[in-house]
Amino acid sequence: MMKNIFASRHANDASSASSSSSDSLIDNPLGNVRAVIDAVLPAVDHGRFAVKCVAGERMRVRAHCFTDGHDVLRVQLCWRAQDQTEFREVPMKPLGNDVWEAAFSPPALGRYVYTVEAWVDPFESWRSEMTRRVDPDDVRIASQVGALEIAAAAGRAEGADRTALQRWASELDAVAATPGSDAVSLKALALDEELADTARRHPDRRHAARYPVEFPLVADRERARFSTWYELFPRSAGTEPGVHGTFKDVEARLPAIAEMGFDVLYFPPIHPVGRMQRKGPNNKLVSGPEDVGSPWAIGAAEGGHKDILAALGTAEDFRHLVARATEHGLEIALDIAFQCAPDHPYVKAHPDWFRWRPDGTVQYAENPPKKYQDIYPFNFESDDWRGLWAELKSVLDHWVGEGVRIFRVDNPHTKAFPFWEWAIGEIKREHPDVIFLAEAFTRPKVMHRLAKLGFSQSYTYFTWRNTKEELVAYFTELSTAPGIDYFRPNVWPNTPDILHEQLQGGEASVYMSRLVLAATLSASYGIYGPAYELRDHLPRDPGTEEYLNSEKYQLRHWNHDDPESLAPFIARVNRIRRENPALHWDRTLRFLHVDNPQLLAYAKSSEDGANVVVTVVNLDPHTPQSGWIGLEPGNVGVSPPSRSFQMHDVLSGQRFIWQGDWHYVRLDPQNAPAHIFVVRRRHGDERDFDYFL
Amino acid sequence: MMKNIFASRHANDASSASSSSSDSLIDNPLGNVRAVIDAVLPAVDHGRFAVKCVAGERMRVRAHCFTDGHDVLRVQLCWRAQDQTEFREVPMKPLGNDVWEAAFSPPALGRYVYTVEAWVDPFESWRSEMTRRVDPDDVRIASQVGALEIAAAAGRAEGADRTALQRWASELDAVAATPGSDAVSLKALALDEELADTARRHPDRRHAARYPVEFPLVADRERARFSTWYELFPRSAGTEPGVHGTFKDVEARLPAIAEMGFDVLYFPPIHPVGRMQRKGPNNKLVSGPEDVGSPWAIGAAEGGHKDILAALGTAEDFRHLVARATEHGLEIALDIAFQCAPDHPYVKAHPDWFRWRPDGTVQYAENPPKKYQDIYPFNFESDDWRGLWAELKSVLDHWVGEGVRIFRVDNPHTKAFPFWEWAIGEIKREHPDVIFLAEAFTRPKVMHRLAKLGFSQSYTYFTWRNTKEELVAYFTELSTAPGIDYFRPNVWPNTPDILHEQLQGGEASVYMSRLVLAATLSASYGIYGPAYELRDHLPRDPGTEEYLNSEKYQLRHWNHDDPESLAPFIARVNRIRRENPALHWDRTLRFLHVDNPQLLAYAKSSEDGANVVVTVVNLDPHTPQSGWIGLEPGNVGVSPPSRSFQMHDVLSGQRFIWQGDWHYVRLDPQNAPAHIFVVRRRHGDERDFDYFL
Repeated sequence: MMKNIFASRHANDASSASSSSSDSLIDNPLGNVRAVIDAVLPAVDHGRFAVKCVAGERMRVRAHCFTDGHDVLRVQLCWRAQDQTEFREVPMKPLGNDVWEAAFSPPALGRYVYTVEAWVDPFESWRSEMTRRVDPDDVRIASQVGALEIAAAAGRAEGADRTALQRWASELDAVAATPGSDAVSLKALALDEELADTARRHPDRRHAARYPVEFPLVADRERARFSTWYELFPRSAGTEPGVHGTFKDVEARLPAIAEMGFDVLYFPPIHPVGRMQRKGPNNKLVSGPEDVGSPWAIGAAEGGHKDILAALGTAEDFRHLVARATEHGLEIALDIAFQCAPDHPYVKAHPDWFRWRPDGTVQYAENPPKKYQDIYPFNFESDDWRGLWAELKSVLDHWVGEGVRIFRVDNPHTKAFPFWEWAIGEIKREHPDVIFLAEAFTRPKVMHRLAKLGFSQSYTYFTWRNTKEELVAYFTELSTAPGIDYFRPNVWPNTPDILHEQLQGGEASVYMSRLVLAATLSASYGIYGPAYELRDHLPRDPGTEEYLNSEKYQLRHWNHDDPESLAPFIARVNRIRRENPALHWDRTLRFLHVDNPQLLAYAKSSEDGANVVVTVVNLDPHTPQSGWIGLEPGNVGVSPPSRSFQMHDVLSGQRFIWQGDWHYVRLDPQNAPAHIFVVRRRHGDERDFDYFL
Repeated sequence: MMKNIFASRHANDASSASSSSSDSLIDNPLGNVRAVIDAVLPAVDHGRFAVKCVAGERMRVRAHCFTDGHDVLRVQLCWRAQDQTEFREVPMKPLGNDVWEAAFSPPALGRYVYTVEAWVDPFESWRSEMTRRVDPDDVRIASQVGALEIAAAAGRAEGADRTALQRWASELDAVAATPGSDAVSLKALALDEELADTARRHPDRRHAARYPVEFPLVADRERARFSTWYELFPRSAGTEPGVHGTFKDVEARLPAIAEMGFDVLYFPPIHPVGRMQRKGPNNKLVSGPEDVGSPWAIGAAEGGHKDILAALGTAEDFRHLVARATEHGLEIALDIAFQCAPDHPYVKAHPDWFRWRPDGTVQYAENPPKKYQDIYPFNFESDDWRGLWAELKSVLDHWVGEGVRIFRVDNPHTKAFPFWEWAIGEIKREHPDVIFLAEAFTRPKVMHRLAKLGFSQSYTYFTWRNTKEELVAYFTELSTAPGIDYFRPNVWPNTPDILHEQLQGGEASVYMSRLVLAATLSASYGIYGPAYELRDHLPRDPGTEEYLNSEKYQLRHWNHDDPESLAPFIARVNRIRRENPALHWDRTLRFLHVDNPQLLAYAKSSEDGANVVVTVVNLDPHTPQSGWIGLEPGNVGVSPPSRSFQMHDVLSGQRFIWQGDWHYVRLDPQNAPAHIFVVRRRHGDERDFDYFL
């Protein structure tokens, strides 16, 4: 019954219909709709793009709803999987100030939509007035009015509900009509709770308003929100200096990488490297016959984006590696760099996918006067853009077929935006578990657009946010609406392209503090190793962020047995991340007041509030710093707030008892540049003891 | 030519199409559209409601636009009157951070729409790269590329432009093809400014993106933004105590009201007052035969909403009054209260417009246990809601026909919202000069909805915002987006319903400071007089905001010759408002730092920045207060900022010379509770003197 009413209308709410012109309102069959839905949140560009969540999580939706006068609204959150037709409903509750809220949990991966329906409810309005009536005559007349509403509800009901409501209506009407009947017991009958619930099941929704937008939602798997990345160049995984590493060599490294606590292992491109215009070590324009070139110069005579560089191994070796990684709790992420070396097979097979110049050469990538002669970009304005799109998607399909479910996309902002929306949408329609990380270090609105278009995670400016003021401003922005609803940050202290000047001194305290910041400020972070744990810190030139002897252009050999390796420290931090749900979320971040500009303190809590982690980082790599942190016990679940509570530094193992609002902290970078406190609330005291009462 | 390209597409931008599903993108004929329009501002609920402006004003529009890679965009603001089909275009300029801006001036009253179109411009992209080219071979090849673009532009041009572009293309290509040609002069030819302008007139817009929403805009007359209201009860305008005032009596008051500087004269309802359930003085439930009742209990045997209470005069008297008011620069504003006294003719003629109770009576207005037996509300869920809407609109039509162009609408939030959107839309379609003020003292989201639906101005919480903190927070909200784009505040220190406790002491300093606050914080304000200028300040009961012996229920007689009348003060403040364009705007308000919580200071400037007014108010009615105001000379147009400048207090006539960033102020409420400074910048010094150089 209700379903029919519900399904028969779509976006016909006169008070909310998009772009309705006012003079059509009187022609609208629902001009007498009095409920107003002014806004539905979250929303990305008014529903143009999907909000992101994780399957199984509580997805909270709010609506701003009201009506004229004092009548009572009922508001329903309506949601469905995108490929279903029937909406499910959850009653929304008023939070005050005309804000209503409800939540639902998308049961599985995939796309959903949600919207809101609201109506002025005559039964609830009558009931609300009745609770406030005192005059006996008023109670009697109002009871007769109510009997009519209840009879109407009976007419919409069937079976036992119908019978119960009919009986209630008759009795109420009869008692009200009896001269001199007792108004107090009449009012009690009118306000019967159980019967009211029965009536509520059969509301009159003929005049319901429905928000005209169905807001899309993508439910990902948890790794889209919480992930720990390790990047390495497989070709540098060889056991001997100067010998090209292989997938087999990488397999040997898996236990150590898993031991450090990572769950995503990401490789730069693994395809044949172009020979034409190949770059030499340190980005030299000329290369020798032994030089391996840049893996991002993709494609040579032997193959392109779907092929594997022979020196790394075979397709079979790759599949074996993927399987072994899985056994260690690691997923392999591949780099998707949609560009070609001049000798990529595409250049001959599909000349129309490139821009040709009057001299018969292909327009290589350039930003004058800079030139990238080893890279040919695709021309997304090609007349055969459909052919190009289809081929590029088939590259993704190929690697999905090989078992890859995570892609790090190289410079997506230099490819046409509509392509990404289409390609990611298509891939995720068939494989909703696929995760895309956008490597776009570009202007803010461009990065946000890519996230809106469908990228699951995004690189950030973290690398260049170093002072307290910078970190507070940036992570406040990242953890609040509207960005928090679609832009999932993945923060990196270093990448093969970025050896930040802070790291160029090589101090362990800097490497440790930046790692702690990344690991605790953001639910997803990554490092480019082994350069990070072994503190490779020399730049190619002064003033550059390029590594000296960068793996981008040559093989490197790493001493994993270095006793100064930060691997044990990283392992400890990553274990803390795994064990504390508070660190799996970005939304709950809040910064704490500290009276020292070198100390940064912030709290995060799990969605249910049970787990609270307070991190304090000394941003000064050389000098001990101390200060007072403002942390109100009531805000970390300590009740009553006057109680003492334990702060367990899970990094050092130390435990401190705190009480009140202000707390002294001192951090010596030579020992530990950070505290990662888990708040341990006391769950028992003498009042919980059996004989206390 | 351009027009054709332009007109042939609508909302088909693949990268912005509303609600497009990703898998349709490859079927979209414009998948190769690379320009992205991420947002257009201002926008009210994504274009669901109109932005408000004033005809002739500069309407600034911003868009967030970018593309992949480094190519150059061109962006056009497109606007038209709603009833026209052809868009006009204004080139948008980049402000940085991917924000583009342009402005247009709606030439006349009425509704407009605007949107944005952007495209990756091959000619500009080529030109931008060319400016940075240094290698002679690059310049030669690039010139050949450019010759092709220019030839293409020639193909889109006609007449002289075509000829000029063809010649340019040929010459550029020929010189580029000449071995050993001089790259410097070739580059100069390629970058010819005048020819570039010719080429820009013929862009290739085949791949243009167009924002899928056409944003509505209402252009009102200036009084919708800047107005000064005076409310009086005509029935109390009589010259003798106890004698019912008439329109003729009001005419006699016009010079004094105009002299005080008001431009809108607003009357409570002027219709026949119901006799059934008529209220007595001070809202007594019983009334005597001499009692005049509440003018908001509209309708009696002799007529309803289109009729005039006989004691006030005739329709002819009313028209005469309207004409006389106009001569004094005053517009008459009428009160629209869509509710009925029990004896209103509608009750018998249209019983289906009311809710009937089982006892055969009409459901009067109530919010249990409060009852308003003299008021019958309309039932907007009536089956005949169309008939009700049409009749209510005909009431507005009637008074528009009588020359009224401003309506103050009583409690619009207790009538169905869709009605207002329709009725205001219809009236303004025929009479775009009509102004509607929403008297809704209710919850914030409801007040905002009414403004979105079309009300030109809105009552505010000003009356209850008294401390510095309250005023700063509230007026900051009122003067910033999104509200500033559709919600125009009209602030009132008092109304017939609200004698705020601050005023109940009757101190002149309070009445003066509240008036200055209203008149300078808000471009529109009003007072309920003569109660205000004569400081009527006794409440009916302690703890109430109701006036004792309120004019709402009885006649009053006022002594306009009271030497303590604030009329001269009000006249001075209103003259200052008229003479200073800075006070005609809400958008430019900014609060200044003062190191004293009893002093409030703020600046406003005219749109062109030429007129700057700084107001300082002592919020303490009893004690002199002093403090230091932070005002950076550069922010009020003083250049260089080290120069001294004159602060002319146009309230007292005093002039002060200020210099630097911090300025001492002292205000004694016994003399003047406020400064209203006009910043007088020095326009000449010795360097401007003839013989200086």
